[in-house]
Amino acid sequence: MSSIQRYHVGPRLCETVVHNNTVYLAGQIAEDLDKDALGQTVEVLACIDRLLAEVGSDKTKILQVTIFITDMADFDAMNLAWSEWVPQGHTPARATVQAKLADPRYKVEMTVIAAL
Amino acid sequence: MSSIQRYHVGPRLCETVVHNNTVYLAGQIAEDLDKDALGQTVEVLACIDRLLAEVGSDKTKILQVTIFITDMADFDAMNLAWSEWVPQGHTPARATVQAKLADPRYKVEMTVIAAL
Amino acid sequence: MSSIQRYHVGPRLCETVVHNNTVYLAGQIAEDLDKDALGQTVEVLACIDRLLAEVGSDKTKILQVTIFITDMADFDAMNLAWSEWVPQGHTPARATVQAKLADPRYKVEMTVIAAL
Repeated sequence: MSSIQRYHVGPRLCETVVHNNTVYLAGQIAEDLDKDALGQTVEVLACIDRLLAEVGSDKTKILQVTIFITDMADFDAMNLAWSEWVPQGHTPARATVQAKLADPRYKVEMTVIAAL
Repeated sequence: MSSIQRYHVGPRLCETVVHNNTVYLAGQIAEDLDKDALGQTVEVLACIDRLLAEVGSDKTKILQVTIFITDMADFDAMNLAWSEWVPQGHTPARATVQAKLADPRYKVEMTVIAAL
Repeated sequence: MSSIQRYHVGPRLCETVVHNNTVYLAGQIAEDLDKDALGQTVEVLACIDRLLAEVGSDKTKILQVTIFITDMADFDAMNLAWSEWVPQGHTPARATVQAKLADPRYKVEMTVIAAL
């Protein structure tokens, strides 16, 4: 028997699910959708920090990140914010692909699996 | 040493893989490809129910779902079926992105990680 | 408390992360980008073999693979290499979607979750 903890449980999705010492975050997007890719990435990474902190994890414990960006032309801008944020020596397995997202103003969305 | 159980093992892929009390499903698609996005989503969710039931899991134990839809214009139709199906209080971490799928008639594909 | 091992730790990402008897690989791409989809897939699969071997895992222990290809017209070519490589009886949960990747010459990228 394994227990599951859920945080920020909404009607469609839950922001944070914990099971087996592993944390699964819903796809994180920016709040201010008028921002450019750099600004949105900063916001997404702040969301990740906040959600991980709530369950006692943090960015040094991230296992896998999948980054969806709507325009690969924003790859460098996204990476600028990423490189400022990601802890050296603790970088996660990462993949970045281009995909249209649910709202046309979204420029970047990230899903995260982390250790508790 | 960790043990792995595989169910519906085909030549290219396996529908269900269990390891460490965690269940990984292959990307689920509809069987009737003449159906619209709503109808295909209903079928995909029924596939997920069936596969999870086989290993003693169920939709209240889903940790993470990634939803690929071929046309973001179908987002609302997909969500209509999703909202009917997803158990309130047990919603999973979820991300939805647009991506072309292996068959042009596929309108939605979902990958699932669940707890046993 | 759970421990995390990281291998090939770069400034942006890490190729291999191990936690809880589970291995997460960064998105694997080919080295020779002049190769076609078949040739690139062969290289990607060789990368996966090499990274898993380093941590004492192998392709019979893969749990989930997500395959991103830039052109669904390459689906058959990718599958040709895949079918030669994937161990019968031990196929993983798999999903394949079309997505533009970070370099326009990339034809295929795969993310992997495996058991140790």
